[in-house]
Amino acid sequence: MVLRYALSPMKELWEQRTTLEKWLQVEIAVMQAYEDLGVIPKGTTDQAKRNATIDMELFREYENQTDHEVIAFVKMATSKMGAEARFFHYGLTSSDVIDTALSLTLVSACDILLNQMKELLTSLWKLALEHKYTLTIGRTHGVHAEPTTFGLKVLNWYAEAKRNYERLVLAKEQISFGKISGAVGNYANVPPEVENLALEKLGLKPSPVSSQIVNRDHHAFLIMTLALIASGIERMATEIRHLQKTEVLEVQEPFKEGQKGSSAMPHKQNPILCERLCGLSRIMRSFVSTAIENNILWHERDISHSSAERYTLPDATQTLYYMLVKSQYLVENLVVYKENMVKNMNTTHGLIYSQRLMLALIDKGLSRNEAYDLVQSLSLRCWQTKEDLRELAKKSLSILTEEEIDMVFDPNYYLKHVDEIYKRFEGECTK
Amino acid sequence: MVLRYALSPMKELWEQRTTLEKWLQVEIAVMQAYEDLGVIPKGTTDQAKRNATIDMELFREYENQTDHEVIAFVKMATSKMGAEARFFHYGLTSSDVIDTALSLTLVSACDILLNQMKELLTSLWKLALEHKYTLTIGRTHGVHAEPTTFGLKVLNWYAEAKRNYERLVLAKEQISFGKISGAVGNYANVPPEVENLALEKLGLKPSPVSSQIVNRDHHAFLIMTLALIASGIERMATEIRHLQKTEVLEVQEPFKEGQKGSSAMPHKQNPILCERLCGLSRIMRSFVSTAIENNILWHERDISHSSAERYTLPDATQTLYYMLVKSQYLVENLVVYKENMVKNMNTTHGLIYSQRLMLALIDKGLSRNEAYDLVQSLSLRCWQTKEDLRELAKKSLSILTEEEIDMVFDPNYYLKHVDEIYKRFEGECTK
Amino acid sequence: MVLRYALSPMKELWEQRTTLEKWLQVEIAVMQAYEDLGVIPKGTTDQAKRNATIDMELFREYENQTDHEVIAFVKMATSKMGAEARFFHYGLTSSDVIDTALSLTLVSACDILLNQMKELLTSLWKLALEHKYTLTIGRTHGVHAEPTTFGLKVLNWYAEAKRNYERLVLAKEQISFGKISGAVGNYANVPPEVENLALEKLGLKPSPVSSQIVNRDHHAFLIMTLALIASGIERMATEIRHLQKTEVLEVQEPFKEGQKGSSAMPHKQNPILCERLCGLSRIMRSFVSTAIENNILWHERDISHSSAERYTLPDATQTLYYMLVKSQYLVENLVVYKENMVKNMNTTHGLIYSQRLMLALIDKGLSRNEAYDLVQSLSLRCWQTKEDLRELAKKSLSILTEEEIDMVFDPNYYLKHVDEIYKRFEGECTK
Amino acid sequence: MVLRYALSPMKELWEQRTTLEKWLQVEIAVMQAYEDLGVIPKGTTDQAKRNATIDMELFREYENQTDHEVIAFVKMATSKMGAEARFFHYGLTSSDVIDTALSLTLVSACDILLNQMKELLTSLWKLALEHKYTLTIGRTHGVHAEPTTFGLKVLNWYAEAKRNYERLVLAKEQISFGKISGAVGNYANVPPEVENLALEKLGLKPSPVSSQIVNRDHHAFLIMTLALIASGIERMATEIRHLQKTEVLEVQEPFKEGQKGSSAMPHKQNPILCERLCGLSRIMRSFVSTAIENNILWHERDISHSSAERYTLPDATQTLYYMLVKSQYLVENLVVYKENMVKNMNTTHGLIYSQRLMLALIDKGLSRNEAYDLVQSLSLRCWQTKEDLRELAKKSLSILTEEEIDMVFDPNYYLKHVDEIYKRFEGECTK
Repeated sequence: MVLRYALSPMKELWEQRTTLEKWLQVEIAVMQAYEDLGVIPKGTTDQAKRNATIDMELFREYENQTDHEVIAFVKMATSKMGAEARFFHYGLTSSDVIDTALSLTLVSACDILLNQMKELLTSLWKLALEHKYTLTIGRTHGVHAEPTTFGLKVLNWYAEAKRNYERLVLAKEQISFGKISGAVGNYANVPPEVENLALEKLGLKPSPVSSQIVNRDHHAFLIMTLALIASGIERMATEIRHLQKTEVLEVQEPFKEGQKGSSAMPHKQNPILCERLCGLSRIMRSFVSTAIENNILWHERDISHSSAERYTLPDATQTLYYMLVKSQYLVENLVVYKENMVKNMNTTHGLIYSQRLMLALIDKGLSRNEAYDLVQSLSLRCWQTKEDLRELAKKSLSILTEEEIDMVFDPNYYLKHVDEIYKRFEGECTK
Repeated sequence: MVLRYALSPMKELWEQRTTLEKWLQVEIAVMQAYEDLGVIPKGTTDQAKRNATIDMELFREYENQTDHEVIAFVKMATSKMGAEARFFHYGLTSSDVIDTALSLTLVSACDILLNQMKELLTSLWKLALEHKYTLTIGRTHGVHAEPTTFGLKVLNWYAEAKRNYERLVLAKEQISFGKISGAVGNYANVPPEVENLALEKLGLKPSPVSSQIVNRDHHAFLIMTLALIASGIERMATEIRHLQKTEVLEVQEPFKEGQKGSSAMPHKQNPILCERLCGLSRIMRSFVSTAIENNILWHERDISHSSAERYTLPDATQTLYYMLVKSQYLVENLVVYKENMVKNMNTTHGLIYSQRLMLALIDKGLSRNEAYDLVQSLSLRCWQTKEDLRELAKKSLSILTEEEIDMVFDPNYYLKHVDEIYKRFEGECTK
Repeated sequence: MVLRYALSPMKELWEQRTTLEKWLQVEIAVMQAYEDLGVIPKGTTDQAKRNATIDMELFREYENQTDHEVIAFVKMATSKMGAEARFFHYGLTSSDVIDTALSLTLVSACDILLNQMKELLTSLWKLALEHKYTLTIGRTHGVHAEPTTFGLKVLNWYAEAKRNYERLVLAKEQISFGKISGAVGNYANVPPEVENLALEKLGLKPSPVSSQIVNRDHHAFLIMTLALIASGIERMATEIRHLQKTEVLEVQEPFKEGQKGSSAMPHKQNPILCERLCGLSRIMRSFVSTAIENNILWHERDISHSSAERYTLPDATQTLYYMLVKSQYLVENLVVYKENMVKNMNTTHGLIYSQRLMLALIDKGLSRNEAYDLVQSLSLRCWQTKEDLRELAKKSLSILTEEEIDMVFDPNYYLKHVDEIYKRFEGECTK
Repeated sequence: MVLRYALSPMKELWEQRTTLEKWLQVEIAVMQAYEDLGVIPKGTTDQAKRNATIDMELFREYENQTDHEVIAFVKMATSKMGAEARFFHYGLTSSDVIDTALSLTLVSACDILLNQMKELLTSLWKLALEHKYTLTIGRTHGVHAEPTTFGLKVLNWYAEAKRNYERLVLAKEQISFGKISGAVGNYANVPPEVENLALEKLGLKPSPVSSQIVNRDHHAFLIMTLALIASGIERMATEIRHLQKTEVLEVQEPFKEGQKGSSAMPHKQNPILCERLCGLSRIMRSFVSTAIENNILWHERDISHSSAERYTLPDATQTLYYMLVKSQYLVENLVVYKENMVKNMNTTHGLIYSQRLMLALIDKGLSRNEAYDLVQSLSLRCWQTKEDLRELAKKSLSILTEEEIDMVFDPNYYLKHVDEIYKRFEGECTK
């Protein structure tokens, strides 16, 4: 992982110590399951919990000795135990512990991400509300189309973020599976009841048929979801980069405290955060193919997924967490230049209303062709001479009154259904 | 699309004629909505339906004239209409029609895929049942680990396919969105009520905030799901390729009718169908990055996704359909060599039971170290001389009776929880 | 392949008839090699050439009978031959023919692409020359930085296209390998001399060690190169899309004949061609992972690459060819609005010269801090009031003469090394 | 980067200290260029070199103060300089230093990789020589095809590795470009002569037209090449994994010192290194799409590539280096079981010679059909009864003598051209 993009608490989740703690959690849950089933003496688990050791130095020492992570872990964990050590890791295969603990870690990662997505949703909703009626030009192909509101743009981001939130809830469910089923998934040395009880304690479901591990389609689904969430952030960041271009300048990403006004080049506010988010989204996207390829393991498992996952799982979750944190900062502090939005809407001197003008003429009884010819000739003149189309219309189209013409050029026409769109989301965001 | 992999009915779904029919379906639904709302005269829609024309030659002629697909479509569709033509495409933007119709097509594609997945699930379940107790060696890292059953392998495929079925149901839901909201999604020329009514008739939900189009995260989710499904098939095909290797020969993919016995090289049955499925899965995987990139459009839309989707959407759905059809054929007709499974299980002359032997000695009171040393020396001899470990044990380990040793080497030990695993799926598959 | 993007002559290259012709070419070359080595009677090859048949109907008939493409081909090709048929396909494995012919096809594809790249290079050079001194603002992060020339932008595209041309020359060399070495590459039934002679006739080199096929790293290198070329086009298309935005309007992609002036919305010229090119580049990019995965075949070959290549090879070469043809049209007919470039350069009212202003003050003896403070205060005023920085400077900075100030604000300062940059490419483009 | 896969000296190359050293190297080269051109006083550069400071603590302090890496670097580097500090970073833009230094780093990375590739080539050649005549079965589709030699397999890896070596030489050339051309590449504040001289000193060529940075097609070409090299390693590792399967056991990846014989499960040698290499190759592949996307920057540069490159460049070079080091260890210490190769060749009881048997009968004058029918019936019997085809032939085919039949079944037939293939590489590897 790139250190500068590793933020707490996601960062700590991927530290080795945390991994060993999750392993211990699994071992203890299995022990308790055996105890509940009467296989091992009452009280064993409590004693084991009290005496269990997590000591990174010891772990590294044992790892060097044994060249086997799980054996080193068991030695370390039981180093201060008494008789209860006998029942530690009882009947288990390394993968039972590692893969179940990995699910615990990924569930925690999902929780961290979901929390942060909630924050982002709240900020987006606030911004959308603030600019519900802030007129701006809608652009298709980068070219002015029709007026809309800046709030609707933000609401579109919000709606996608909400879909993504729900997708992540699903992905979390899909990763909430463990397995305590032995070397090839046949429960040879540990009965399904232990799996059921232990996983229940851990908040996981049993993988209904496992090989040595939990199948990697679960993990691939998660990674794909994270990449999709990232692309939503990239879409927003791309929009802001566009709107921050010198000729447009409708929004700016926040500058740091005290930064404003300090420069001899006040125009040179660069959307570097948004650009960074776009670059990171490319990275997020790149994890997907690896995640899908990891699903195609040989027979009851090969370990080729493991080296790949050392990159993809910590990097994907940490990178997305960084993106979400920064996105929220961005949305919360976005600088919006309403006056430039209005100014830009007039870049074409009224041409964006030419179709409405034509419709107004048709309403007055002109044929479509007549109306088209009239408006076309005015439009071309407007385009070539930069004269205002409204003024040209007023001068040339006596069939329409000044008021009627003013109505044609009234951008508020485009706001008439904004309330209705917002209503679809009301009640959702109360924070 | 590669013609040889295009199968009915998915193939027809992507023909231009079908597209125009879906467009017409959308136009008629919108008309009906206007009629229901009293905006246009009662009966208009029925008349339009009766008089609507789909004529590919006419369409191509108009397309050449206008260089605009939707205008050409409207001209063609209304070419035999009377007054009702006035209300055809009323207040609509091209994208309202195209994008809503695309969702209809994708929903149909999902239905075709879901049906075929059901067939596959049924075949997998049947095969899993048939081989519930068929002993085979479980392999990790390609190396013999512990006995398991071939049925469990198949059940693992089944369980993944079932997860994938449910994922596709979700993806279908996620693509069941249309939009009738105008050039930039502000309902300037068509009220939200029309969208509501029209989409309801079409079985779609309104995109809660649309730009000119339905946001592409919906489509990306679908494509990702299809790629994941394909990877499940690739996993199964890879397993079969492994099991069909000359030295293993536990299964063979079906040979065509009359093919068997016809060759002078009877051993040279190549798993070419499975290999083909693996290659196609690579293709499926490659669509994902494009699908995610397509989400990042500029402002209220740019059309860069469109050229890309001309490849990805028809190719992804058709290729997966081909894969599913062929997979079902494969599963339905798979040749299984139970006797080779038993034979291969003995490749290591009993070494796969060495751990159980050690545990048996421990149960008899030996210390872990003593037991380990004893078994290790026998195991090494077995490995080097190819003598049978069971016989060696009987000769050397007088602490265990012959019966006890036979129990250690009884593969049925590994079947004890098979029923319980299968029970998790019972009641699901009744077909 | 998507039909609308399939252009001649690349399209014909991938038709089945062409494939069979290439197969025949390989068979004849091998025959000639045997004849040259005295293995088969003199004159056999000439006779075979004269009597060889390519008849698609016959081929399909035989294919249906045999379910084997190469056997059907041999039957068709020899259907009108006499005794010489005996030596047709003599000692060959199907893959010898198919894979060698595939290299021939890919070499032809490279030639078509290289020719088109030459055309594009010529057009780019012409456009670069035309706008060598056309002043425009250089933008970093989408924000105005320093003046540069539009010609330099184009020259940058040209320089990348030239690198890509050279890369494609390399890739063509790397794909110019065939193999006539039998089922597993050991020349069991055909001696290396035949391979040498036959491939020489075909303009190919022998793969120094082949398996059943030419290793797929060769093909992957080609596909990667094509994707890289596409990304260069995407970069150019992205720039044009930016420059065509309503607020910028420095260039426009060509509109079709007669299209100009015909619309009532003259501002709504959308860069749809550029957007299409961007979408297609995403597709080109997606072929790379498949191409690399195809390299990892099992043992002496498995056929998983084959289904995948039915998509990637025809689609990648045809799509890129389409992109190149359209790019050249784009460059050749690009509409450039020099006056808007000048206008936009002034968007910041002179702030882009603030650093030069500071340096001029330092040259006059002010300390860096003094100069900075002075310029900063002027800059802020300019930014806030939109007053022209040059005028503000003239009013406030008596230490500089008007002429000196005018020099600071002279964009021609940025042109001083343009000639030198262009000289690096002179002599290259004489067409 | 995943720490466990970061090996010296590649690891140190990517430490921040090394980056700052490369930056200093660029600054000094530029200074020297100015001095050579007489712009700054003689001796300045020497003095700067003597007084330049690299002090990580100081750097971090300044970075916290300024929030700008290059400013902090300049402050640190000049912190003990005298008057010469004036000419440090003279006329330069941050990107001039950063991007030129990045090329230096990547050139060094290429050198490290090339050296390691040479080692690998030597090991591969040695192994290929050792097993030049080691008979083994060639497999297509995982099914026995024809005998070949294990040496030829290795030689095939060698030949690909050699092509990859040459590709990396090319990629190194393509990344050996720097730029000292200012904020938008127009040499506004630094003349081209300085770039020429400085880059020459650094062993780089000037980017013929740069924007603010060296275009990212250079970097993409490198990353693609690294991914292709990795796929070659994956191909080899996949083959070894196949050959190490329990039923095949023709090779084994090396076990650690003292590991052999220590286990109670001597058969359970898992090819975990090869599996790890396969997983890492997936990661390498995933960098390509990001690298290509990074090429499409906006205008004269946006910084979106930068965050992405913080992952891809250090990770790709370090991961591949790890793969190369481990591959060499693997090849150098591979355990080869020649006797199992011979044993496996007989798995089909001689069926792999059935075609040669048929040809021998045809040579004796039988028609193709007669010969086919005879061989087919023997083959089927062999396949069904596991009788040896050679013995069956001796019993049934009196038309052939025992000696003739023995010749048909002589695997040495397949070795006849091995020498010739090896000769193509002689003289290359003398180490």
